[in-house]
Amino acid sequence: MTVVGLLGGGQLARMLALAGTPLGLRFRCLDPAPSPPASAIAEHVRAAYDDHAALTRFIDGLEVITYEFENVPAAVAAAVDRRVPVYPTPEALRVSQDRLAEKEFLRWLGVPTAPFVPVDAPEALPAALAAVGLPAIIKRRRLGYDGVGQAVIADVLDAHRAWIEVGGEPAVVEGRVSFARELSIIAVRGTSGETRFYPLVENHHTDGVLRWSIAPALDVASELQHQAEELASRVLRAWSYVGVLVLELFEVDGKLVVNEIAPRVHNSGHWTIEGAATSQFENHLRAILGLPIGSTAVTGYSALVNVIGTLPDVTPILRLPDTHLHLYDKAPRPGRKLGHVTARVAEPQLLEARVALLQQLVRQERRPSCNACS
Amino acid sequence: MTVVGLLGGGQLARMLALAGTPLGLRFRCLDPAPSPPASAIAEHVRAAYDDHAALTRFIDGLEVITYEFENVPAAVAAAVDRRVPVYPTPEALRVSQDRLAEKEFLRWLGVPTAPFVPVDAPEALPAALAAVGLPAIIKRRRLGYDGVGQAVIADVLDAHRAWIEVGGEPAVVEGRVSFARELSIIAVRGTSGETRFYPLVENHHTDGVLRWSIAPALDVASELQHQAEELASRVLRAWSYVGVLVLELFEVDGKLVVNEIAPRVHNSGHWTIEGAATSQFENHLRAILGLPIGSTAVTGYSALVNVIGTLPDVTPILRLPDTHLHLYDKAPRPGRKLGHVTARVAEPQLLEARVALLQQLVRQERRPSCNACS
Repeated sequence: MTVVGLLGGGQLARMLALAGTPLGLRFRCLDPAPSPPASAIAEHVRAAYDDHAALTRFIDGLEVITYEFENVPAAVAAAVDRRVPVYPTPEALRVSQDRLAEKEFLRWLGVPTAPFVPVDAPEALPAALAAVGLPAIIKRRRLGYDGVGQAVIADVLDAHRAWIEVGGEPAVVEGRVSFARELSIIAVRGTSGETRFYPLVENHHTDGVLRWSIAPALDVASELQHQAEELASRVLRAWSYVGVLVLELFEVDGKLVVNEIAPRVHNSGHWTIEGAATSQFENHLRAILGLPIGSTAVTGYSALVNVIGTLPDVTPILRLPDTHLHLYDKAPRPGRKLGHVTARVAEPQLLEARVALLQQLVRQERRPSCNACS
Repeated sequence: MTVVGLLGGGQLARMLALAGTPLGLRFRCLDPAPSPPASAIAEHVRAAYDDHAALTRFIDGLEVITYEFENVPAAVAAAVDRRVPVYPTPEALRVSQDRLAEKEFLRWLGVPTAPFVPVDAPEALPAALAAVGLPAIIKRRRLGYDGVGQAVIADVLDAHRAWIEVGGEPAVVEGRVSFARELSIIAVRGTSGETRFYPLVENHHTDGVLRWSIAPALDVASELQHQAEELASRVLRAWSYVGVLVLELFEVDGKLVVNEIAPRVHNSGHWTIEGAATSQFENHLRAILGLPIGSTAVTGYSALVNVIGTLPDVTPILRLPDTHLHLYDKAPRPGRKLGHVTARVAEPQLLEARVALLQQLVRQERRPSCNACS
């Protein structure tokens, strides 16, 4: 019996375990929460990530370990990797959990990013803003997610408030990119170097949280897909990466700018469960277990709408044709991702109406406390 | 939190729980085995089905209960139904677990079956064989599955050996039906009476065990599909049935003869996980929970091949395009269903080669001890 270890027991771990159970795999997750989403399918070791006794119990008998979010301490992943292989490499975790390290890594690879300047103290703000231009976004270096730890700076006079808002700690100031749209590329690379890509996904955020996606993104020239794959390939090769990797992208005048690296399965790839021959979750597991990577071919067009903050009435959702509900077994809380709905349609012109209807049915609320991002 | 109870924790319960977890459901199974396939996803109450103290623990807090195989004692299901709703009705369980009661029920509904005569003692065999003709099949009335409890009678002199072989207990002698092929119809009916059907599936058995299926069955006239739906509808209405119901069918000169009723999700419907808009497992759960029944539309053509007796090398299987592995976490044993593989193809003419290849890759062994069936 092959047991896969999951650092983190959130919805991504839950969907990994749901995808891997049919492959005959078993799962064990490490998560400090009392009843995280993955615990419905995976054995749950409840402990802090740096609890060494718990880590020893956690890794006992595991074949391979993966992580499901960036905020698992990279030092823990690196320590565990000396006992049981951790994929993707803990180096990807270390870099992607520090916005400055991530931007510097991308710059070193020659990958386009927004202009950025590190800011370690508020005195450095005016020079940083002068360098990147206004409006700018300040993002704290660590523990950001879903728009948390970010603030817009419209004006130099505004900078100190924003600095305090994101925690008054080391941050990166980025120039605002005037993008036509937000996209993401989902890549998967196996232990043999075999690499596949899903088609570009178009993403729509509000308050820094992904609200909805459509896949494949519409009106994508093959050159744009190629560009995205080439950028992802640079990152994959630099890290000898194994598993699913996602780049969050801005499209600017037909060119791509990388906003963020996610060294894991990603919300913008949830549509692959029904919309692709092999889901991102199954392909991540195939990759880290040294199995062949599955086809990333799509079936029709998929609309993905997140369920955020409150649980919807499921009946009208389930009445829609080829519409698939995924709830994460999480208690409702404003701004919290509780699930998602994927609808497959045969024709791209059906996407817009389906997204509008689904958004209405899931009653997405905005998070009034957050003023970051557009 | 809605908890669904499963009487039985085998692979059907496992796939029900895998399908229902994304809907936000939780599962609890009752099964006497130490670690049944469903226990990876469902809470497991380990006890005999007639252990009253365990049943009380099992039903505590359940929203609804279903059963996953016919050999759960019907009296237990009926007793439980007085506390928590059991779907499908325990009456369907009672009838389908007794071959004689099932045949008589079908005859009463005017549904065509093979000619049959009950035999309670070996002295009755000659008259029974004279009535149904030779060759005939003797099937014990209870606890049959996958060809177990059946024997062919080629000759009157052979009858006593066959009687002993199937257990020397009350049985049914059936006339052999010269069928063109074996089919099955998968129906689902909700609490409101809403009913949907999947397209007819073509099934291939060896030694009484399903080896492979293709779906939709090829060259099915709409009249044949209609006939199957009409026969299933009679059964559904007679029982005010809620859930998935499957009829195993013989096609004889363009007419359908019912071989068996399965009041549950069925092996010949496993392809619906990838090959239909909504799987039989999700639709069974939607039905018993009073939710809308999902679309039964298919995507392409599916080939389903069972993994029997020994576990295959998964790597060459996972290398095939749009091919999906499902292992049930069961210990290998001759003749035992350990998993299945579903491959989707775009064109029906690709099915035959894909089935042949998959059968080779899963190395299906025959069960040498069984001489029943063709």
